[in-house]
Amino acid sequence: MPGLLATPPRPLEELVLPASRLTAGERAVLIALLGADRVREGAHERAFHARGRSYRDLLGLRAGDLDLVPDAVLYPRGQGEVLAVLMLANEAGIAVVPFGGGTGVAGATLADPCGFKSVLALDLTGMDRVIEIDTVGGTATLQAGISGMALEQALKARGATLGHYPQSFEFSTLGGWIAHRGAGQMLPRYGTAENWLLSARLATPRGLFSTEAVPASATGPRLSQLIVGSEGAFGVITDATVRIRSAPAFADYRGYLFRDFASGAAAIRTVMQNEIPAAMLVLSDAQETRFCRAFNALSDRQGWSDRLADARREFNGFDDAACALVTGFEGTRTEIRESVGRVAAIARRLGAIPLGRSPGERWRAGRFRTPGLRDSMLDRGVGIDTFETAASWSRLDALHASVCQALTAALRANALKPDADGIVLARIAHAYRDGASLEFSVIFPRRLDGEIEQWQAIKTAACDAIVAHGGTISHHHGIGTEHLRWMEMEKGALGLEVLRAIKQVFDPKGILNPGKLIPR
Amino acid sequence: MPGLLATPPRPLEELVLPASRLTAGERAVLIALLGADRVREGAHERAFHARGRSYRDLLGLRAGDLDLVPDAVLYPRGQGEVLAVLMLANEAGIAVVPFGGGTGVAGATLADPCGFKSVLALDLTGMDRVIEIDTVGGTATLQAGISGMALEQALKARGATLGHYPQSFEFSTLGGWIAHRGAGQMLPRYGTAENWLLSARLATPRGLFSTEAVPASATGPRLSQLIVGSEGAFGVITDATVRIRSAPAFADYRGYLFRDFASGAAAIRTVMQNEIPAAMLVLSDAQETRFCRAFNALSDRQGWSDRLADARREFNGFDDAACALVTGFEGTRTEIRESVGRVAAIARRLGAIPLGRSPGERWRAGRFRTPGLRDSMLDRGVGIDTFETAASWSRLDALHASVCQALTAALRANALKPDADGIVLARIAHAYRDGASLEFSVIFPRRLDGEIEQWQAIKTAACDAIVAHGGTISHHHGIGTEHLRWMEMEKGALGLEVLRAIKQVFDPKGILNPGKLIPR
Repeated sequence: MPGLLATPPRPLEELVLPASRLTAGERAVLIALLGADRVREGAHERAFHARGRSYRDLLGLRAGDLDLVPDAVLYPRGQGEVLAVLMLANEAGIAVVPFGGGTGVAGATLADPCGFKSVLALDLTGMDRVIEIDTVGGTATLQAGISGMALEQALKARGATLGHYPQSFEFSTLGGWIAHRGAGQMLPRYGTAENWLLSARLATPRGLFSTEAVPASATGPRLSQLIVGSEGAFGVITDATVRIRSAPAFADYRGYLFRDFASGAAAIRTVMQNEIPAAMLVLSDAQETRFCRAFNALSDRQGWSDRLADARREFNGFDDAACALVTGFEGTRTEIRESVGRVAAIARRLGAIPLGRSPGERWRAGRFRTPGLRDSMLDRGVGIDTFETAASWSRLDALHASVCQALTAALRANALKPDADGIVLARIAHAYRDGASLEFSVIFPRRLDGEIEQWQAIKTAACDAIVAHGGTISHHHGIGTEHLRWMEMEKGALGLEVLRAIKQVFDPKGILNPGKLIPR
Repeated sequence: MPGLLATPPRPLEELVLPASRLTAGERAVLIALLGADRVREGAHERAFHARGRSYRDLLGLRAGDLDLVPDAVLYPRGQGEVLAVLMLANEAGIAVVPFGGGTGVAGATLADPCGFKSVLALDLTGMDRVIEIDTVGGTATLQAGISGMALEQALKARGATLGHYPQSFEFSTLGGWIAHRGAGQMLPRYGTAENWLLSARLATPRGLFSTEAVPASATGPRLSQLIVGSEGAFGVITDATVRIRSAPAFADYRGYLFRDFASGAAAIRTVMQNEIPAAMLVLSDAQETRFCRAFNALSDRQGWSDRLADARREFNGFDDAACALVTGFEGTRTEIRESVGRVAAIARRLGAIPLGRSPGERWRAGRFRTPGLRDSMLDRGVGIDTFETAASWSRLDALHASVCQALTAALRANALKPDADGIVLARIAHAYRDGASLEFSVIFPRRLDGEIEQWQAIKTAACDAIVAHGGTISHHHGIGTEHLRWMEMEKGALGLEVLRAIKQVFDPKGILNPGKLIPR
C-alpha cells in the first residue's frame, strides 16, 4: 500500500483545553464528597476521558480535537458516592458520562454536555472490589468498575470463571460489559451479559435501584434485562451479581479449511444446532483467509503444519474461495475429546481439511492484540475499522455479500488514490442456533485532507447495507452516538418511546449520558 | 380425611348472568368487523371466559359467582382484526382481556372492567396458524393462539420441537406461555420464553409493534424481553417467532432415592453446575416422597421394582427423611447414555439408591394429569392448591422449611376441624446453575362456610413466607391479580414506575387487561 508516511498524533502538551466550567461551589462540594485526589481537572485526565476508542474517537484524539472534554473526572469509591454525585449533578444541571475502561467503539463515552452547562466523567475503575464469590451457589458479586483481568484473576483463584473475553478484556470493566451488551470471544459457551447477569445495582438521579436477585421469576418482564444495553442512560451500574462456572480444566483450539464460505457456515450452524458445546467458532471469509495466509507466510511462526496444509489444500483442489474456521472447546478432557470428535466428523462430511492446532494457538496468542494494532497503523497513514452485525442463518449469505460489496464500493469512492482503495475482510465471529454475527474489517490508506468524511462515508455504506439486508445495526458494539441514526429502524417508533419512557423514570432531567442510545 | 361429602358445582343453567353492557352500536361494529359468529354473548361463552383456573377461580366458577363476566367474547382471526378491536375498545373506553387457553392460575384473565364501562374477552384460540417452520434456520413462526398440542404436532411433523411442556400443555397457547413467562417441565433443557422467544408481534391501542427479529444484538435493551411476562397489559401478542430444536430421538426418565432433601438438592445442583444437559430434575421432599409411596402402594402399578426399592431402602437404613428424585434426559442415544452415567455417578457419590425407570415412567404417564384432579377433589369437599417460588441455592433449605412451616400453621389455624387440617407436600421442580424453583402443594378439607377466607389465609401465609426468605413471589405462575400485593417488594417502587411507564406508551388509556400485573 502506498502512503506509508509518518502520521503521528499531536502531543497533548501542544493543546490548550477549554477551561473547566465547574463553578467553585460545585468543585468544593465534589471535593468535600470524594476528596481532592478524586476530583481531577488535569489535561491528561480530561483528554483521556473525552472519548472512547472507536476509529472516529482515535481520529479525534490523535488530531487533538478536544472541543468536547469533561470539565472534571471523578473517581467515586462506592454506590453511595456515585449516588451523591448524581444527586448533585441532577440538582445543578450537569451531564454525567459513566466511564469504565473507556474501550467502547460506538461513541458512548463521548463527553458531550448536550446542552447541559457542564459535563462530568465518572470513572468507575476505583470501584473494583470483589464483594463475594459463592462457588457453591454459582454466583459472584463485584463492583462494576473491576477490569476483566482482575475479575478473572479473582475468580480463577477460587476455581471459577465468568468466561467473558471481549477483545478489550484487559481494560474493559464488568459494568461496561453489562451497559454495552457486549460479547466475549467464547460467547457460544459463556453467553453475553443477557445470560450471565443475575442482578445489577444502579445509582440513578431518582435513587438506588436493584434488579431481581432470583435465578428466574414470572413476575412481569425481568428488569435486569433493561440494564443490559442501557449504556449509562438509565443509571450508573455500581455493582452486579453474575453467574459463574467452574474454570475449565482443559482447552482445545484448532483449525479447519473449508472449500467455501457456505460450507464453513453450514458447519458452524450444524455444530450450534446439534448443541455441541463449542466455546468459539470463527470462520474467516475467503478474503480474510487469503490475507491471513499471506501474513502468516511472512511470519517466523510458519511451520511444517502450515506447509502440510498448503500441500493438502492443493491436493484437494481448494482454490481462492477456501475459508478457515477456528474452533475452541473448553471443559474436562472427556468433554473436549467428545466435542472435538463430533465437530471433526461434521467438518469431514462437509469436505473440510483439518489444519490441526496451530491456527488455534495462533488465534489465542493474538486474541487481545488486534485493537492495539490500530494505533501503529494510524501512525503510518493507514486506517482500519470494524463493522459488525448479526442475522438469521437464511439472511447471512446475502448480508455478507452485500456488505462486502457496499464496503468495496465505498472504499473505492473515497480512496486516497484510484489504485489505493483498501481491502475488506469478513468473518463469522459468533454463532447461535438461529443465526450468527458477521464482522467486517476494512484497511485503507487515509485521506488526510478529509479523513472523517472518508470514514463516515465508509461507515454509512456498511450500516445502510446491514440494515437493508435484515442485520442488526450492532451485535456487540452498542449504539452510543455512532449508530444512533439507525436506532429507529432497529426498535421502531414505539420501541424508542418505550426507551424514552424508561429513561424518564430514572433520569427525568436527562443528565445521564445524554445524546447516547436513544435518538432525540 | 374426613369431610368427603359431595360438593358438586352449581349448574350453569341455574345462574342468571348480568346483561351485556355492550351498546347496540358497539355490537354492530364488532359484528361488522369479525362476523356474527365471532362475537358471542351466550351464557356458556361468557362464563367460560370469566376467569382462569386458579383455585380461587375454581371456587368462584363452581359457586356460580359470576359478577365479573365479559360482556362479550370475541374470536379474531388475525393481527388486523385484533388491532381493529383494540382501536374500537380504546375509542369507546372498553376493557379488553386477552384469553388464550384460559389455564392461568394467578387471576390474569379475570374479566374485571376495572372502572371501564364494559369488558371484552379476546379469545385468541382462533388464531392458531403455523406461519413458517424453518428447520434450517432453527426457527418457527406461529400465530399466538395455537395450543401446545397443535404446535408440537406441527413441529414434530418437521422433525423439530420447542420443548415447552407446562402442565397445562394440552390447553395453553403459545401467546399465553410468552405473556405469562411460564415454565415447561423440561425447562433445564429447553428454557422458558425468555430463552426461546426470538421475536413477538403485538397489536396495541397505539398500533402494531414488532420486537427485534435478529438472533442477538447490542442495540439497547432487548424489547422482546419486555413482552415475556407482559400478561396482556402492554399489547395482545398476535404471533411470534420461536427458536426450535431437532426433536430428540430418545428419552430416558428414571428415579433415585436420597437419604434426605439436602443430598438430593446437592445432586441437582451438581448436575446443573456441571452442565450435564438434563431435561428434567424433580426432587420430592420427604413428605411428598412418603405420600407418593403410600399412594403407589395402593395402585396396580406397584411392581417388583418398587418392592426391590423398598428392600434396598431398608438395607441402606433410609428413614422417613428419604427424598425421591426423577431425572429426565432427551437426545441421541449416545448423549443420553453419557449423561445418565454422569448423573448416576453423582447420585452414587451422594449415597442415593437408583430406582430404575419405573418412577420416571410413572411421572411421564401422569405429567399433565394433576391439574384435572383438582375438580374431582373439589367435588368431594377437598381443596388443593400449589404455591411456587425460586431462589438461590444458599436460600433454598431455609425457604423450603419456612414455607412448609407457615403452610402447616395456616392449615391448622384455618382447618375445617382440629383433627383435619391437611397436608403439605413440596418439591424442587426446576433447576438452574444458580438456584432452583420450589413448589408447595396443600391438600385440605374445605371450610364450606368460608372457603375463600380459608384459601386466602393459606395463600397469604405461603406468599409472605416466600418473600420473607428471599424467594420470588412467582417462578412460573405469573402475577395476575393474585400476586399483585407482593409485586412492589419484587420489583421495587422504581421498577413499578418503569412498568407503568411502558404500559403508558402502548396503552395510554389503560384498557388492556386492567388491574393485572401492575398494582395501581
